[in-house]
Amino acid sequence: MSIRIFITGGTFDKEYNEITGQLFFKDTHMSELLKLGRSRIPVEIRTLMMIDSLEMTDADRNLIAENCLKAAENKIIITHGTDTMAETAKVLASKAMKKTIVLTGAMIPYKFGSSDGLFNMGSALAFVQSLPHGVFVAMNGRYFNWDNVRKNRQTGAFEELR
Amino acid sequence: MSIRIFITGGTFDKEYNEITGQLFFKDTHMSELLKLGRSRIPVEIRTLMMIDSLEMTDADRNLIAENCLKAAENKIIITHGTDTMAETAKVLASKAMKKTIVLTGAMIPYKFGSSDGLFNMGSALAFVQSLPHGVFVAMNGRYFNWDNVRKNRQTGAFEELR
Amino acid sequence: MSIRIFITGGTFDKEYNEITGQLFFKDTHMSELLKLGRSRIPVEIRTLMMIDSLEMTDADRNLIAENCLKAAENKIIITHGTDTMAETAKVLASKAMKKTIVLTGAMIPYKFGSSDGLFNMGSALAFVQSLPHGVFVAMNGRYFNWDNVRKNRQTGAFEELR
Amino acid sequence: MSIRIFITGGTFDKEYNEITGQLFFKDTHMSELLKLGRSRIPVEIRTLMMIDSLEMTDADRNLIAENCLKAAENKIIITHGTDTMAETAKVLASKAMKKTIVLTGAMIPYKFGSSDGLFNMGSALAFVQSLPHGVFVAMNGRYFNWDNVRKNRQTGAFEELR
Repeated sequence: MSIRIFITGGTFDKEYNEITGQLFFKDTHMSELLKLGRSRIPVEIRTLMMIDSLEMTDADRNLIAENCLKAAENKIIITHGTDTMAETAKVLASKAMKKTIVLTGAMIPYKFGSSDGLFNMGSALAFVQSLPHGVFVAMNGRYFNWDNVRKNRQTGAFEELR
Repeated sequence: MSIRIFITGGTFDKEYNEITGQLFFKDTHMSELLKLGRSRIPVEIRTLMMIDSLEMTDADRNLIAENCLKAAENKIIITHGTDTMAETAKVLASKAMKKTIVLTGAMIPYKFGSSDGLFNMGSALAFVQSLPHGVFVAMNGRYFNWDNVRKNRQTGAFEELR
Repeated sequence: MSIRIFITGGTFDKEYNEITGQLFFKDTHMSELLKLGRSRIPVEIRTLMMIDSLEMTDADRNLIAENCLKAAENKIIITHGTDTMAETAKVLASKAMKKTIVLTGAMIPYKFGSSDGLFNMGSALAFVQSLPHGVFVAMNGRYFNWDNVRKNRQTGAFEELR
Repeated sequence: MSIRIFITGGTFDKEYNEITGQLFFKDTHMSELLKLGRSRIPVEIRTLMMIDSLEMTDADRNLIAENCLKAAENKIIITHGTDTMAETAKVLASKAMKKTIVLTGAMIPYKFGSSDGLFNMGSALAFVQSLPHGVFVAMNGRYFNWDNVRKNRQTGAFEELR
């Protein structure tokens, strides 16, 4: 069965607007990324929103949860801004779905040469296939249970709480 | 505990010699790749050989197997040319180690902008952490058991035998 | 004799801060760029300021002009934000130096894969060697006299006034 | 008037065949390169051949010369393998055309991230607009007269004969 990929925005999909000099969202680069990775895993990609995760509201998180619940697939990847990834993971875990849900993202936009996005998606796709049901964050080559992860704002790295 | 990474060469680490116009091996790009991926997983990297996998001999495969046996780690990634990855996997499986061993590689050298190497290593690191003991090939976002994989020479994709 | 390169900032040298998600200035990438271009032209690089050209003051422009006047070299390249490049060119032209001065920049930061910076610097280095004394803007593969150039804010392209 | 660009192959346009692991020629990347450089110079691109310059024959060089003679444009850029660039320049100079002809190329294929091709084309476009009639080689940020240039096979750099 396919893996479902939900896009919510975050650094991962930010682009540079060369007219205004600002970072902004246009379309997701997920298909391009999977093509670059020569991925042969069947996936269904759907964009739910295109926002900075600092601007994500409770309503947004509920929308993501509903989409996970309704999805035919039981393996789901969610691209997400790194700042509140742990918060969304908590909301998803509260729904106690019999699914493997992996949240991932990037510290550097995919379109900038030096992005970690390709590496993180490689990890997320592997974890979603091999981890049991539950909600996980996959960043920095590691995976974290939803209730044992935070982003260290000083270093930018994800780490365990205990 | 750390993950052991053994380097054996293959397309993954090939470089372009701008004086001769030939592809060649110099050093592995593994540390550079893991830095780009912002990987925070402790790893031990050791280069065993730097060869094209079409030139890999039985002696080379035994050397790889011995190093896997001797390694203190029970999670091992091996970068390898794609052409004979399945053959080396078979030799490793014959040793029946209580370890998780994942072979991976690239269709395009890491140093060429369009490489799948970063994606594959993201996958391999995730699979080696989450799969049970056994020998696996991780390519194209998928994993394959050592006894059920071949490279399709026409398409370049890895696929199951049955 | 060497070519003098003055750095003033602009999009060319902007970087992405992965902790804050903001664009910022750190160091110039000029040496790295010239190495990538395998440039064999002797150059002297000096950073005068690291600012967005929309924030450039009269005092800043006078500082640039003074440095051009004092420079031992009579071939000078200035990297500059694109928004007020034409304005700085006018100040430099008012000094009537017996030098060839070429202003250039980038629409996309050099550190983002899709930058025009390498192309523009290739052009600027060529123009400064082959154009007569005067003040010029080199962008989009073209050169413009200081008194016949503006940036089209809608398209991002440089064009002649008449 | 437009600038004419003739494509003849060389390292500039080589690609990596991920099935065979060999370098090969497919199409020229010139349009893609000029788009990346945001070039606004009108150009006419025509592919004359796609070969390694070590395999270029007298007949090939005559074909290039004939195309330069017949071209409506008097500003011509020729992309060319670096090994025999000086030889082709000599053949073109023997035709004594009232045109500015600039040969350029790359030490690293354009499709490999670390290519000097974008830099060299930026230079070549600038030199062809600003140099007098004659035949020149533009490499390494410099230009050379056809009768005073050779490629140093040890360093890969172009240098003057005297």
